[in-house]
Amino acid sequence: MKISFIGSGHVATHLSQALFHLNHQIVDVFSRSEENAKVLAKKVGAQSKTSLNKLNLNIDAFIICVPDEHIAEISHALPKNVVHIHTSGNTNLNVLRSDKCGVFYPLQTFSKTKEMSFYGVHLLLEANNEMVMTLMQDWGLNLKTQLHFVNSEERKRMHVAAVFACNFSNLMVNFAEDILSEFNLDSKLLLPLIQETTRKLETMSAHSAQTGPAIRRDQKTISDHLNVLNQMEDSNLSDIYTRLTKEIQNKHGEL
Amino acid sequence: MKISFIGSGHVATHLSQALFHLNHQIVDVFSRSEENAKVLAKKVGAQSKTSLNKLNLNIDAFIICVPDEHIAEISHALPKNVVHIHTSGNTNLNVLRSDKCGVFYPLQTFSKTKEMSFYGVHLLLEANNEMVMTLMQDWGLNLKTQLHFVNSEERKRMHVAAVFACNFSNLMVNFAEDILSEFNLDSKLLLPLIQETTRKLETMSAHSAQTGPAIRRDQKTISDHLNVLNQMEDSNLSDIYTRLTKEIQNKHGEL
Repeated sequence: MKISFIGSGHVATHLSQALFHLNHQIVDVFSRSEENAKVLAKKVGAQSKTSLNKLNLNIDAFIICVPDEHIAEISHALPKNVVHIHTSGNTNLNVLRSDKCGVFYPLQTFSKTKEMSFYGVHLLLEANNEMVMTLMQDWGLNLKTQLHFVNSEERKRMHVAAVFACNFSNLMVNFAEDILSEFNLDSKLLLPLIQETTRKLETMSAHSAQTGPAIRRDQKTISDHLNVLNQMEDSNLSDIYTRLTKEIQNKHGEL
Repeated sequence: MKISFIGSGHVATHLSQALFHLNHQIVDVFSRSEENAKVLAKKVGAQSKTSLNKLNLNIDAFIICVPDEHIAEISHALPKNVVHIHTSGNTNLNVLRSDKCGVFYPLQTFSKTKEMSFYGVHLLLEANNEMVMTLMQDWGLNLKTQLHFVNSEERKRMHVAAVFACNFSNLMVNFAEDILSEFNLDSKLLLPLIQETTRKLETMSAHSAQTGPAIRRDQKTISDHLNVLNQMEDSNLSDIYTRLTKEIQNKHGEL
């Protein structure tokens, strides 16, 4: 199949390479940044393009991996007789301007510089056309993802949940790194703890996996911790600690 | 070696079994709850005790795994000629009332109901006596932990960091579960995402691994997400979303 990518960010980087390795032909990689377009195009044997007018139209599908607010305008600028697929969790299917549209949203976190596999990833699919759905299912199955058929509203809700489970939980680890760094302690110390925190979620809900001074209502430890945090330059952290401690206690009531 | 456990909670449950499997003899398990004492004592071939006066004193060490605020009083009530070891991140070594004292703090999250291994866990050790340190190092090495020698102040700071990296990141996953549950979506969907979020931390700092609408300054997605959260019964969540989004943006400045 002949596929072109609009965008060269985290998702485009991983998805284009994954489809390339499934022996699909990546025709064009478009980016407003010539450098970014070239870097990715080279990885997948494609042409790099910086102008939408120069795109090769003899293809089966455009995969649009641009910031959400640009998806509608990009789709509007592309020919309507080709399949348009976007990869956004938050964007409605109906912003796409083709009769053959789909959403191919992997519920996953992508960083350009980190290798990742689509194996086992939950893939949320939606289409306004049976052929597009079949095509996306085929990609999803060959990538060994787990397929789900969800509408745009459900996908948006899952995306909000993903922000908490991924982006905000990562922020908490970043705060932990800040604390260790402020006191010249090694941030590598956290990894086995973080790994076990995640491993517990394979068999327990996060609600039942909760541990720590907040759920134990260990007021002495909580106030010692606040003293440590108040020694830091970023005085925000003691405020966040207090707020999240209260949230845990609200969730769990009296022990 | 003959060891008795004071306490029967998460840490006592895992550590007593691990030491039992290293062929140490667990003599007594003390808990104010007879039921809890019996359950754990049975697992490690020990006597269960609910009175400190009834403890067998012909042992090499007491391991005190009780809530932080009770460690000092328990240590005070135990004979001074036996080794006293506590397992708390936040509690100073000097609350123990023996000449042979140590702290054996595994930087890890423990849940009674979840199997766990000490393999690779960072173990933070402190002692006021060389023999106690040697004894704890021996346990730590045989449990295949990674040993660190830190004083009480450093250990407390690491413990604060651990609250963010483990307890608060777990809270974020709990919020994600709440969102999916409110909208009748399957919370199992999050696991591969959470696993990849953790896998990234094997090779990147959390700071460089950050993704999502906040760091992209994707205002449309952020306001769509707030609309979703405002549909929920727990109106707290939109407030937390706003706060944590701002924290990510403060950390990362303009892209």
